[in-house]
Amino acid sequence: MVKFDIILASASPRRKTILSQIGLEFITLPSNTLEDFSINLPPEAFCEHWAREKTKDVAKNHPNTFIIGADTIVVLDGKILGKPKDRDHSVFMLKSLSGKTHEVLTGVSFFHLESGTDITFNESTLVSFDTLKDKDIDSYIDTYKPFDKAGSYGIQDGFSIHINKITGCFYNVMGLPISKFHKNFQLLKKEINN
Amino acid sequence: MVKFDIILASASPRRKTILSQIGLEFITLPSNTLEDFSINLPPEAFCEHWAREKTKDVAKNHPNTFIIGADTIVVLDGKILGKPKDRDHSVFMLKSLSGKTHEVLTGVSFFHLESGTDITFNESTLVSFDTLKDKDIDSYIDTYKPFDKAGSYGIQDGFSIHINKITGCFYNVMGLPISKFHKNFQLLKKEINN
Repeated sequence: MVKFDIILASASPRRKTILSQIGLEFITLPSNTLEDFSINLPPEAFCEHWAREKTKDVAKNHPNTFIIGADTIVVLDGKILGKPKDRDHSVFMLKSLSGKTHEVLTGVSFFHLESGTDITFNESTLVSFDTLKDKDIDSYIDTYKPFDKAGSYGIQDGFSIHINKITGCFYNVMGLPISKFHKNFQLLKKEINN
Repeated sequence: MVKFDIILASASPRRKTILSQIGLEFITLPSNTLEDFSINLPPEAFCEHWAREKTKDVAKNHPNTFIIGADTIVVLDGKILGKPKDRDHSVFMLKSLSGKTHEVLTGVSFFHLESGTDITFNESTLVSFDTLKDKDIDSYIDTYKPFDKAGSYGIQDGFSIHINKITGCFYNVMGLPISKFHKNFQLLKKEINN
């Protein structure tokens, strides 16, 4: 059986927690990739593209290591929301999501430069918000400062009281679709060992 | 504004975590109530009944404290599953849930003996399992010993790789429906302060 080292190309503590949850051993090394929201791609291709860019960036210095990357976006009425630029943007995002159902997409990339492994996939989860009062939004932003989160909220923090329903994988909204990830990772391991 | 002390009548570390997540201050005092699965009630009434029995039990010694209790059950084809009795029962439960969608119901009770506050409600979430191999079941039980969990699995532990979809509130499956809980708790606070 081939043993390989794994790097998670992400600064997200949430992704680290989720990967640890399935018993994977890895080290963390965030990429320097800067997401450009102006590129014109459908949401599924967009999040897979940026997941791959992250792993490719880290792979440059680690060509013989297996790199895992992910990119999570929020999609509302066909428009992609990333992380908020500042407090005003955060307020704007939460107001636009209030009382509606949006889609959370996470693109995942498996990349290994030397062997040529380059697999991407994505997972979609629907998330329904209650109608938010202005004071709910202000109090949430002031307490949780959700500036590192796509759509400006964390399903695993104090915002959870405003989410009345999800359809799909919870961990996908947190940043990594654990069930789909595990299935694809098992397939990949089989392939490598054949 | 009336201030009141709160007791969570539960030994579940998961419920404690969820309640802390919404910033509530409380102490924990598990009830001595033993759930009797032979009582003949529809699932919604069953979980609300046992949630109330737990709060009532704790309220006997704390008549002037606000007690919160909850009871989580798994319902498959109309049959209620509680916690497994032993390892064999755990295997049996997971085999019966394999490849199917089941319902998780949590009944919640708000109880205050002196004021006569006695409110119950429940929340339902649908959970879809992948088809499980025998070795998946054995390895999960040996690693996580899910004997304190309704249906014999934890959505927040290593079992998450086998769950392909949920519909509803994730925290409800963990043991407390955070969004519905918060709404009802706010209503109750308003009522008490009027």
